[in-house]
Amino acid sequence: MAEDRLIYLPLGGAGEIGMNCYVYGYGAPDAERLIVVDLGVAFPDMETSPGVDLIFADIAWLAERADRIDGIFITHAHEDHVGAVGHLWSRLRAPVYARRFTAHHARRKMEEQGQDPENVRIAGIWPETVEAGPFTVGFLPVSHSIPESSSLVIETKAGRIIHTGDFKIDVAPGVGEPFDRALWTEAAKPGVKALVCDSTNVFSRHEGRSESTVGPEIQRLVAEQTGMVVATTFASNVARVRTLAEAGVASGRSVCLLGRAMRRMIEASVETNVLSDFPTTVSPEEARDIPRDHLMLIVTGSQGERRAASAQLSRGKYLGLSMDEGDTFLFSSKTIPGNEKGVIRIMNAFSEMGVDIIDDDNGRYHVSGHANRPDLATMHELVAPQIVIPMHGEHRHLREHVKLASASGRTGVLAPNGTCVSLSGNKPEIVEFVETGRTYLDGAVQIGALDGVVRDRIRMALNGHVVVTMILDEEDAPLGDPWVELVGLPETGRSGSSLTDVMEADLGQFLQRANDKTLLDDAKLDEGLRRVARQTALDEIGRKPEVTVVVSRLS
Amino acid sequence: MAEDRLIYLPLGGAGEIGMNCYVYGYGAPDAERLIVVDLGVAFPDMETSPGVDLIFADIAWLAERADRIDGIFITHAHEDHVGAVGHLWSRLRAPVYARRFTAHHARRKMEEQGQDPENVRIAGIWPETVEAGPFTVGFLPVSHSIPESSSLVIETKAGRIIHTGDFKIDVAPGVGEPFDRALWTEAAKPGVKALVCDSTNVFSRHEGRSESTVGPEIQRLVAEQTGMVVATTFASNVARVRTLAEAGVASGRSVCLLGRAMRRMIEASVETNVLSDFPTTVSPEEARDIPRDHLMLIVTGSQGERRAASAQLSRGKYLGLSMDEGDTFLFSSKTIPGNEKGVIRIMNAFSEMGVDIIDDDNGRYHVSGHANRPDLATMHELVAPQIVIPMHGEHRHLREHVKLASASGRTGVLAPNGTCVSLSGNKPEIVEFVETGRTYLDGAVQIGALDGVVRDRIRMALNGHVVVTMILDEEDAPLGDPWVELVGLPETGRSGSSLTDVMEADLGQFLQRANDKTLLDDAKLDEGLRRVARQTALDEIGRKPEVTVVVSRLS
Repeated sequence: MAEDRLIYLPLGGAGEIGMNCYVYGYGAPDAERLIVVDLGVAFPDMETSPGVDLIFADIAWLAERADRIDGIFITHAHEDHVGAVGHLWSRLRAPVYARRFTAHHARRKMEEQGQDPENVRIAGIWPETVEAGPFTVGFLPVSHSIPESSSLVIETKAGRIIHTGDFKIDVAPGVGEPFDRALWTEAAKPGVKALVCDSTNVFSRHEGRSESTVGPEIQRLVAEQTGMVVATTFASNVARVRTLAEAGVASGRSVCLLGRAMRRMIEASVETNVLSDFPTTVSPEEARDIPRDHLMLIVTGSQGERRAASAQLSRGKYLGLSMDEGDTFLFSSKTIPGNEKGVIRIMNAFSEMGVDIIDDDNGRYHVSGHANRPDLATMHELVAPQIVIPMHGEHRHLREHVKLASASGRTGVLAPNGTCVSLSGNKPEIVEFVETGRTYLDGAVQIGALDGVVRDRIRMALNGHVVVTMILDEEDAPLGDPWVELVGLPETGRSGSSLTDVMEADLGQFLQRANDKTLLDDAKLDEGLRRVARQTALDEIGRKPEVTVVVSRLS
Repeated sequence: MAEDRLIYLPLGGAGEIGMNCYVYGYGAPDAERLIVVDLGVAFPDMETSPGVDLIFADIAWLAERADRIDGIFITHAHEDHVGAVGHLWSRLRAPVYARRFTAHHARRKMEEQGQDPENVRIAGIWPETVEAGPFTVGFLPVSHSIPESSSLVIETKAGRIIHTGDFKIDVAPGVGEPFDRALWTEAAKPGVKALVCDSTNVFSRHEGRSESTVGPEIQRLVAEQTGMVVATTFASNVARVRTLAEAGVASGRSVCLLGRAMRRMIEASVETNVLSDFPTTVSPEEARDIPRDHLMLIVTGSQGERRAASAQLSRGKYLGLSMDEGDTFLFSSKTIPGNEKGVIRIMNAFSEMGVDIIDDDNGRYHVSGHANRPDLATMHELVAPQIVIPMHGEHRHLREHVKLASASGRTGVLAPNGTCVSLSGNKPEIVEFVETGRTYLDGAVQIGALDGVVRDRIRMALNGHVVVTMILDEEDAPLGDPWVELVGLPETGRSGSSLTDVMEADLGQFLQRANDKTLLDDAKLDEGLRRVARQTALDEIGRKPEVTVVVSRLS
C-alpha cells in the first residue's frame, strides 16, 4: 500500500481574486480524506459573462469525491469565500464549520437555497479545534475587513499547515479581534510545514495601515461639511460603517443606513455580539424630516452597482431621500478593477446635481483589508514555515508572492488552480493537474462556462441576430418567400433600402436557383440561407450577423 | 437687426474624455458663421455599446447649418480629436485646417472614407493665421503627448479666445516644440476674452512632470534586464517611442517596432519632419535571429486591445516572435479607466510564461500628457482671460475646473455638451441648450445611440433569445406545433426536461385553447405566444428571455 500523503489543491482563488475554494487531503494517494476551505463566488461582467448571476469554481472534482469530504471550513463571511455555500452544498453534503458571525451568513445562504442551515456548525477559536477525519482544524483569529475573520491551523500527521484566509496585520481593527502576535507565535511554535497565504496586495509596496487611522480623517471631513453627508463603503466592513456612523454623530448628525446589505450586516453583527455599541440610527422615513446639515446617510453601492442605494440616489429620489447642491458624497472605499466605469457614472451624476464628491485618491478615507508586501514578509517570518504557497490572487500575484518568499530563502510553490501539490516529502512536489474551471449561475440554472450558452449571447451582442424562416410545401418546393426578422441590427444599409427587404430578395433568389439536392437536405438549405443572409448583411451594413434559420416542411 | 454675437457650443468632449467637437459662432443670432474645432471619436465598450466600432458626437445641429461653416480646425492627431473627420466630413463640407503632422493623419482618414484629402489644408503656426469667415485662427504650439499639438488663437470682433486643445506645460517634451512661455505671453497680450481649457487632469494635485524625466528611468530599467525587453506605450506618443528605442540601443539591443499603428506613427513623423533621429530598427523577420538579450520590441496595445501586438504576444507567437521566461514586459503607459480587465488579462498571460511585468505603478516610466491642477492654474494666470470655460472632461472634471478658476477670482462657466454660451456681453450668458448625443459607427452604418439597435443587442446578451415560429393553415388554424429555437439559453431547466420541449408543449397548449379572435389577430397571437414563452422560461430557468415570434399564414 502506498504511503499516506498530504495534498493541497486549489480549485478557485489561485488564478483570480475571488471565487475561493481550496482542498486539502490526507491519506493513501487517490483515496485521501478531504477538507474544503471556502466556497466563494466571483462576479460576472458584461464582457465575458453577460446575463450571468454568479460565478462559482467548478467543483466537479470534489463532487465526484463527496464521500471522502470530512468538512467544509469557511474562513470569513465575504461573498468570495462564503457566497457559493448554499448553491454548491448539495453536491458535497459535508458539515460546514465557521465562527459565529460567519456561520450566521452561511446559514442564511443555505436557507435561501433550500438547504438545512443546521449543516453549518459554529466553531470556537484556536486552540479549540474541530476534528474532521485525519485533520484537526482550529480557527485562528486574524484581522481583515470583516468581523471574525480567521486563519486555519490545520494539523495532520504530515505536519501543520496554516491557511491564512484573507488577512492584514492590524493591531487596532476597530471591530473584531486585533492581530494577536502572541497567539500566532503560539500557533507557529511546533513548526509549520506550509503557510498558504493571501496574495492580494503583494504589489503594494508600503506597510499596510490600520483601520484605526481612517477614523480621525473621516471625523474631520464630516465635521467640515455644511450640507448632507452621504458615505459609502463595503457593507461588510462593519468597523468602517461604525466609524462613519460615529463621525456622523460626533458632528451632530442623525445617521441613516440605506441599502439592504448595509442594514443586514449591522443587524448580524449585533445579533452575533460582534458589535455592541453602534450608534442609534433613524429610518429613511424619519430622515426625510431632518434638516440636511444634521443628517448623514451610510449607503451601499461603493462599486457603482446599478441597484444599490448610491446608484439609486445618483438617479434621483430613493426612499424619499435625494441629494442636492452643497451635499457631499464620500467613497470610503476603493474601486475594484473592472468597476471603474460604474463608479464614474455615479460620480458624474452627482456632479450634475452639484454634489461634492470625495474619493479615496490619497488613501485618507480608506485602508485595504489585505496584507501589503512588507506585511506578507512579516507573516512569513512570524510563521517561519518550510514552504510558502501563495493563494488568493491572479497568476501575477501568486508569482510575485513566490518571488517574495524566495527572496528570504524560503521555498515558494506556484500553484494555480488545479495544481495538486504533495506536501508530505522533504520538499513539495506537484503530483497532478486537475481540470478546473468556472460554473455560472444563470437565472436558476448552473451551466458550465464553456457550454456555449454565454458565447452565443456575446455573439448576438457583438453581431446582432437575423432570424430567417421559410416553408417548403408537400412537394418540398418553397412556399412563398423566406421571411427575415432582424434583432439588434440597423434597418437600412448602403443601398438605402430596408435591410429586411434586400435580404429577403437575396434569399428568394437563392431559393429560385436552388436544386432539389439542396431543397431536400435540411443541413444544406440551412447552410445556404445562412451564407446568403450573412453576405447580404456584409454588403449592406458591413458586418456578418448571427443567423438562425427555421425551415418548416409541410411534407 | 439683432446685434452680432460670439457663441461657444460644445457638441462632444464636454461631458466625457474623448469625442471632442466644439463649435464657435459669430454673427447675428441664429445666423452666426461657424467654425468647428476637432472631430474626434470615443471608443465603445461591451457594457453600453456592444458591437459598435466607433462613437462620434451627434453633429445633427451642425449638419443642418453646414452652409454656415467656414472651417474645421484640428488641434492634434489623437483619435479623440481627429478620428471622425473622414466619417463626418461629407455632412459638413468645409475646409479642414491642421498643422503638417496632424494634416497627414487627417488626410489619411479622409482617404479611407473616400473623401478628397485635399480638403485638408496645412496651416502654419501663430502668428500666422487662417481667415475663416469672421474668425481669424492661429495654431499656437503647445506641448502634449503627440507631435505638433496646438492651441488655437481665435480672433473675433468680440474679442480673442484661446482654445487650449489638449496640453501640458512641458519645456522638454522630447519631440516637438517645448512649451514656449514667451510666445504664449505674446498671444495673451492683447487681452483674452475666454480661455477654453482642457480639464482632463484637474483632479491630479501635483505639478505635472516633463516627458524628459522618464528617459533616464527607462534607460536604467532596460539596461538592467537580461532577457528580451518588450515595451508598450501609446503609438502616438512619438517622444516616448523614441525614448524607448534609444534605451534599447543604449543597452546594445536591436529595436523592432511591432503593430501597425506603431510603424505608421513613426513613418508619419519622419515624413513630416517631426522626427529626424529615430534609431535604426530591424524587421520582425530580422528580429527572430537576434539573441533575446540583444533585442527590444516596442509594441502596440498598452490598453489591452485584443488585436494589438501585446495581446497577440500574450497569446503566443506573433510574426514569429514570442516571449519567454526571463523576458521583461514594460507598460510605459497608464491604463485608461475601463480598460483594466483587458490589461490585467495580458499581465496574467505573461506571468504564466514567466515574464516579468513592470507597470507604471509609481509614475516612473510614464508621465501624463495633460496639465495637472497646478499647471491649469498656471495657464489661467499666464493667459489671464476674462472667462475660463473648462472643456475636455467628464462633468465632474468640468465642475472641478470651474471651482479652480473661481478660487482665483475668475469667472468660470460650466458648459457641458449642448450648452450654447454667448461670450459677447459683459459676462457670459447661456443662451440655449442644443440637443446633443452620440452617433455609433456600426459596421458600415451610422446609427443613433438611442435607435434601439444596440439596446436590443444588450437585451439579447443579458437575457438570451427565443425564436418561436408557427404556421396557420388556409383556415387560420394552427398547422402542426409551434417550433422553438433557443440562442444563448441553457438547454435544460428545473424540470430536467429540454427547455425547448417544455416550451413547445406550453405553446401548443396555448394554441389549442386560443379562440378565433386570437388566431385571426397577428398582434394578439404574437403577444400570447411571447407571454407563454417568457413564463415557461421563467419557471424552468429563472429568467425571461427576449422572444421573436414569426407567424406564417398560408391563407
